[in-house]
Amino acid sequence: MDFTITERQKYWRDRVHKFMDEHVYPAESVYAEEMSVVGQERWKVVKVLEDLKAKAKAEGLWNLFLAPNAEHDEDDYRGAGLTNLEYAMCAEEMGKVTFGSEAFNCSAPDTGNMEVLHRYGTRKQKDQWLRPLMAGEIRSVFLMTEPLVASSDATNIETSIRREGDHYVINGRKWWSSGVGDPRCKIGILMGKTDPEAARHQQQSQILVPLDTPGVKILRMLPVFGFDDAPHGHGEVLFENVRVPAENLILGEGRGFEIAQGRLGPGRIHHCMRTVGVAERALEKMVKRLQSRTAFGKKVAEQSVWEQRVAEARTDIEMTRLLCLKAADMMDKVGNKAAQLEIAMIKVAGPRIALKIIDDAIQAHGGGGVTTDFGLAKMYAGIRSLRIADGPDEVHNRAIARLEFARYSNAEHRTQ
Amino acid sequence: MDFTITERQKYWRDRVHKFMDEHVYPAESVYAEEMSVVGQERWKVVKVLEDLKAKAKAEGLWNLFLAPNAEHDEDDYRGAGLTNLEYAMCAEEMGKVTFGSEAFNCSAPDTGNMEVLHRYGTRKQKDQWLRPLMAGEIRSVFLMTEPLVASSDATNIETSIRREGDHYVINGRKWWSSGVGDPRCKIGILMGKTDPEAARHQQQSQILVPLDTPGVKILRMLPVFGFDDAPHGHGEVLFENVRVPAENLILGEGRGFEIAQGRLGPGRIHHCMRTVGVAERALEKMVKRLQSRTAFGKKVAEQSVWEQRVAEARTDIEMTRLLCLKAADMMDKVGNKAAQLEIAMIKVAGPRIALKIIDDAIQAHGGGGVTTDFGLAKMYAGIRSLRIADGPDEVHNRAIARLEFARYSNAEHRTQ
Amino acid sequence: MDFTITERQKYWRDRVHKFMDEHVYPAESVYAEEMSVVGQERWKVVKVLEDLKAKAKAEGLWNLFLAPNAEHDEDDYRGAGLTNLEYAMCAEEMGKVTFGSEAFNCSAPDTGNMEVLHRYGTRKQKDQWLRPLMAGEIRSVFLMTEPLVASSDATNIETSIRREGDHYVINGRKWWSSGVGDPRCKIGILMGKTDPEAARHQQQSQILVPLDTPGVKILRMLPVFGFDDAPHGHGEVLFENVRVPAENLILGEGRGFEIAQGRLGPGRIHHCMRTVGVAERALEKMVKRLQSRTAFGKKVAEQSVWEQRVAEARTDIEMTRLLCLKAADMMDKVGNKAAQLEIAMIKVAGPRIALKIIDDAIQAHGGGGVTTDFGLAKMYAGIRSLRIADGPDEVHNRAIARLEFARYSNAEHRTQ
Amino acid sequence: MDFTITERQKYWRDRVHKFMDEHVYPAESVYAEEMSVVGQERWKVVKVLEDLKAKAKAEGLWNLFLAPNAEHDEDDYRGAGLTNLEYAMCAEEMGKVTFGSEAFNCSAPDTGNMEVLHRYGTRKQKDQWLRPLMAGEIRSVFLMTEPLVASSDATNIETSIRREGDHYVINGRKWWSSGVGDPRCKIGILMGKTDPEAARHQQQSQILVPLDTPGVKILRMLPVFGFDDAPHGHGEVLFENVRVPAENLILGEGRGFEIAQGRLGPGRIHHCMRTVGVAERALEKMVKRLQSRTAFGKKVAEQSVWEQRVAEARTDIEMTRLLCLKAADMMDKVGNKAAQLEIAMIKVAGPRIALKIIDDAIQAHGGGGVTTDFGLAKMYAGIRSLRIADGPDEVHNRAIARLEFARYSNAEHRTQ
Repeated sequence: MDFTITERQKYWRDRVHKFMDEHVYPAESVYAEEMSVVGQERWKVVKVLEDLKAKAKAEGLWNLFLAPNAEHDEDDYRGAGLTNLEYAMCAEEMGKVTFGSEAFNCSAPDTGNMEVLHRYGTRKQKDQWLRPLMAGEIRSVFLMTEPLVASSDATNIETSIRREGDHYVINGRKWWSSGVGDPRCKIGILMGKTDPEAARHQQQSQILVPLDTPGVKILRMLPVFGFDDAPHGHGEVLFENVRVPAENLILGEGRGFEIAQGRLGPGRIHHCMRTVGVAERALEKMVKRLQSRTAFGKKVAEQSVWEQRVAEARTDIEMTRLLCLKAADMMDKVGNKAAQLEIAMIKVAGPRIALKIIDDAIQAHGGGGVTTDFGLAKMYAGIRSLRIADGPDEVHNRAIARLEFARYSNAEHRTQ
Repeated sequence: MDFTITERQKYWRDRVHKFMDEHVYPAESVYAEEMSVVGQERWKVVKVLEDLKAKAKAEGLWNLFLAPNAEHDEDDYRGAGLTNLEYAMCAEEMGKVTFGSEAFNCSAPDTGNMEVLHRYGTRKQKDQWLRPLMAGEIRSVFLMTEPLVASSDATNIETSIRREGDHYVINGRKWWSSGVGDPRCKIGILMGKTDPEAARHQQQSQILVPLDTPGVKILRMLPVFGFDDAPHGHGEVLFENVRVPAENLILGEGRGFEIAQGRLGPGRIHHCMRTVGVAERALEKMVKRLQSRTAFGKKVAEQSVWEQRVAEARTDIEMTRLLCLKAADMMDKVGNKAAQLEIAMIKVAGPRIALKIIDDAIQAHGGGGVTTDFGLAKMYAGIRSLRIADGPDEVHNRAIARLEFARYSNAEHRTQ
Repeated sequence: MDFTITERQKYWRDRVHKFMDEHVYPAESVYAEEMSVVGQERWKVVKVLEDLKAKAKAEGLWNLFLAPNAEHDEDDYRGAGLTNLEYAMCAEEMGKVTFGSEAFNCSAPDTGNMEVLHRYGTRKQKDQWLRPLMAGEIRSVFLMTEPLVASSDATNIETSIRREGDHYVINGRKWWSSGVGDPRCKIGILMGKTDPEAARHQQQSQILVPLDTPGVKILRMLPVFGFDDAPHGHGEVLFENVRVPAENLILGEGRGFEIAQGRLGPGRIHHCMRTVGVAERALEKMVKRLQSRTAFGKKVAEQSVWEQRVAEARTDIEMTRLLCLKAADMMDKVGNKAAQLEIAMIKVAGPRIALKIIDDAIQAHGGGGVTTDFGLAKMYAGIRSLRIADGPDEVHNRAIARLEFARYSNAEHRTQ
Repeated sequence: MDFTITERQKYWRDRVHKFMDEHVYPAESVYAEEMSVVGQERWKVVKVLEDLKAKAKAEGLWNLFLAPNAEHDEDDYRGAGLTNLEYAMCAEEMGKVTFGSEAFNCSAPDTGNMEVLHRYGTRKQKDQWLRPLMAGEIRSVFLMTEPLVASSDATNIETSIRREGDHYVINGRKWWSSGVGDPRCKIGILMGKTDPEAARHQQQSQILVPLDTPGVKILRMLPVFGFDDAPHGHGEVLFENVRVPAENLILGEGRGFEIAQGRLGPGRIHHCMRTVGVAERALEKMVKRLQSRTAFGKKVAEQSVWEQRVAEARTDIEMTRLLCLKAADMMDKVGNKAAQLEIAMIKVAGPRIALKIIDDAIQAHGGGGVTTDFGLAKMYAGIRSLRIADGPDEVHNRAIARLEFARYSNAEHRTQ
């Protein structure tokens, strides 16, 4: 083990940090201004973000998330060549601004969708969808969660994908279809059942669904604690007899779980590191606010109750970051499967610590904390939903516990 | 002590409960429908609520909050005659629906403003403003908190109220002016400095400001998390050379703190009991959801982690309710001042337990929990702001601690 | 409901309070001195406590715990006539000193054993055992928990009680046999299986076992953390072919659970109120300590982190006390069964809040907190074991949750 | 950064692990047997531990804690050559058994005292005291904390060290003098004031005090939650006109704080890693117990409330370990001073997470958890005292917070 950051790690992280400082933070108020519209106008391309994307692409800070992979890399479809560990450090920086990741073409769910196409897509699927995604020309959506079943248990997913000749016909209802609000969102990867009679983990498949296919209907955009998250958004989407070519199926019938597993590792690390970035930003705001206000004849920063909260925030951030970086490093060195314990741990731990810090930061800001002036309530809403998205805490904790129980179940061991 | 609910307590509580069951719960979806509009149209009178008010008034379930007061009651300005304790039990029922209290003309900040007018207003002030407020014809706002200072220390409030001949001239900026969004909101009670040179607690006064006075300008409506709380709303309001007649001053110059003290006791009990009602509603939703969903081959309700959470919720609700009812009873029997410890305690305890329960309920609902479908995220946002409104937790806890320290500071006492 | 303490409640509570002030607190150092011996000498009658008992008995502050009961009271076997609610208030006062309850002949497990004999004993059993227990001449033990099974599920208890002619023969192993260390401990009430083939809740019976019966062997006295709790103590006791007359059986074969249910309600209230007393004492010590020490140029009491902790302690104590008193009042008015929810809640809540407060008090005392100088570590150890004794938190929380789930399982109800 | 354990790190850790497996765990019951005596006999040399020491020394697993130091290493006084990071991994293994560290001559406070002598001692001081300490022939004590002042603020320390001719005369009272109970404890390093008039941080010095000097009086051994921690123990020691040669002073008058700073870094890492080891052991015991018991028809391990607790335990351990290893690595590479933030963080975080886990493990063990049968209550007592020893949490959190505030106090920065 060696906790010193290497030259190469520092190189990428610092470049992203510098780009954030020079271009992204100054763009926050411009972005807010552009988005200070109501109703339908909110679902649009935001100009300042397009400008940032052009700059980042020009500087080669683009598609940093796509880890090199001997098996799947082709000349046309390659990321910047960062390891998961290197990228994780960058992701923290990007996470400090809500639209930070997108500036570098590194935002969910496009990253996960690009990984799936990169790893499992046919050449034709790649040319059609991966190319424009990597170019940042279109956006995408992942269609998994359903409103009518406990999707924490993915075998519950009920949308049907039925073969009819050269096509598959899709019927079902999805929600939390994040990113579907963007006018450039052109393609979805949908999970559903091709064979309800197959073995429990062979029923599901994943298939590419162009969003302009007849029968695809966005019913509504879901608010998160009152925020619409426009222009990204989270849709509830109905699929009524949606027909797509059979070649849109990814990898093969019954392989939906296999694809999902491959997808999830990196995504969880990205989310966790962005969450660490959010926590850092919240702590920074908290600290500055506490130093700027006086009550009962004393700077609020000097009250020991706030010292305890700030110290716990700093400690919790450091610990979470290290665990997340370790998980990333394990993915690079021993693979997703061997890192599954660490990945499950950070999936739960990241939001847990961030919510505590953001909540304290809200309290430090008084009335300003719960409104939109400091971005804290929005941070809270976003991170709170991460305790549910992609599996609730309870499911990941169960997985962790079972690995722990397994250590001793077959073994004679020394202690009582 | 006697924990059995009396006939009279039961009579009022059950009448409110029955009215809620018969009229208010069924109106929830109608209300939501009426409010499913965007932009400026949201700041309107909601028809279904006006219908509920008419019904409640006809049944005599009206102005229940105004405790009888030998000194201040006049034939024209009397509530329904409930004690604080009796009303507290009703307030819990009302709190279960966001617009429940208003249906009974018992919603903040009108209740507090009516109490101030009832207790401290001149006959003329009462005829002009208390009459239509008690009739439910107009709404009101309390103008206290300011964006530029730590209002947790009320001596920081800076809005100036300057005497000029027969008028006072007001200059300053207020925010969290709750209720100002309602088109029927006609009158505000504003706190500000009449004499910045007076002793620390004699600088502030309270004055009536009709909202159509020139110079009053609503700058924006503040979102809470992402909710606008329309049509009630929370405004940021600018006062530029606002001239009101000198007779609008309440009680006298320099008596702002005295009025604030009188106002706060009952209001905190109302808020706490409504919060208990919110917690009960969240627990009910959680329990029903857990019974309705199955994951990994088992009803979620049967998983022991949820048993622990449900049990803690039930226990915390019961304890908080009892403390709040005790505080109400003390106010009735020994007065606001003697009950100040209990009032401070429930101010902190109510939101603390409710947030925990709502958060668990959100988790139990999965993705549905963070959106608007079950009302839980909105509950969370509303209760979270109560940890800041009317003094942050830290200030109330300090007051509690000082009372505790005072018990021993002058006394020889037995233990080490 | 009425939260004012009645004359009669005040009368008894104040008498106990006065006795504590005049006699018990001053005896603490004498008791400690008498117990500053090591080894076998620790298991003895403590003289100062016997003196206190004589005084309390003379003043009529004796057997206060035994609530009046039309069905079971006989002239010879009556307590002081307090209701559960009245006694609960006294129990809090007694709980502030480790040996406080015993001074009034109100200490566990004798109280529970006396209640069982009072309610279910034959006249002969009463004359033989209840008489000297009520006179404070002997002590007793309740023999329930077993080391080899999860006794949280009482159906697991395995000790056998086998009929042989006019006798029962007992074989088994018990632990946490509290009070068995006292040289005056003469009688035990033992729970065991008379019929392993009967229905699940009819297998167990309770029987009187004089401790000098051949085959009863105290294997060791269990430390709690590192405290031996001498001279009371917690024994591990072996029963090898212990023969007792058949008439020693209480109530009848298979009625062990029924007796246990009758026993548990009052005992849990006593424990909870004593726990509230412990929490009050810990808070008092914390507050005094914080006021007496200076660090970094400032009284520790003035640091806001301690203000928050003191305030939370005060709030939590008040809430727990009220819930416990309510449970006691319900037992008086509607009986143990109707109060089962409240009793389960206080069983869990009392230790939970007390441990938090004691832990903070320890921290406030620095190194002195973890040693014996202030009694705090011993408080912690004692209260920590209450989270396990008489059913662990998890079992009581499950019972609470099931009552909650039952409210909605058969009913159509209004909310989503 | 690289989270893969290196060959060399693995080499040492595995050797210690193997030694623990082969020799130390099997010695636990022997040790317990040897210590199953009462009274004065407890303060003795434990034979089985001496045997372990001989074996460990023979294998070269000896004085592993003493990190190489170009400046201070002499041929005679060198440890095994491990870096702080390498040793930290070993310390975790050792920490799993109460007497584990001593078997490798790596137990506190001898380690800290040896470091002080190694770094600041004269050749003569080394020959006299460091030699036998490194040989494991004698033990030592650090005399710092005082009962009458808040020692959390070390400037409060009042013991006087007064120069008289060729001697210093010491007067004062110390407590928490850990290790002083061991009959082989021959030397103490004492902190006290040589010049009460000097600048605040120049008043204190450290001096060597042979324990057989006239005037040194051990008043009592302090229990920790009832445990005497014999034969190590924690003494309260009186110094009355204790005269030691002037050459016993370490480094020079007024340099006590400087020495304390140098001492504390490694010690905190050792403590934290041993604490991680304790937490691992508690988790192991919890997991095994949960798998071995059945209640209400189901293995306790399968109840989801325990899954959550086990998962949180695993996650918290992993995070704490990483932060502690990072702190150790920083000490190796950039020194104690640059690592002060990380060292403060682990000082607080280690005990915090371990206590939670041990407490859950106690609960999982039922009645067995609070007694001595599984060692858990003793673990709890020991770790609880670490939240106070060597500075309470609040002081370290303050230091962390101040570093955080300092980041922004002089700087213009980007966010609001």
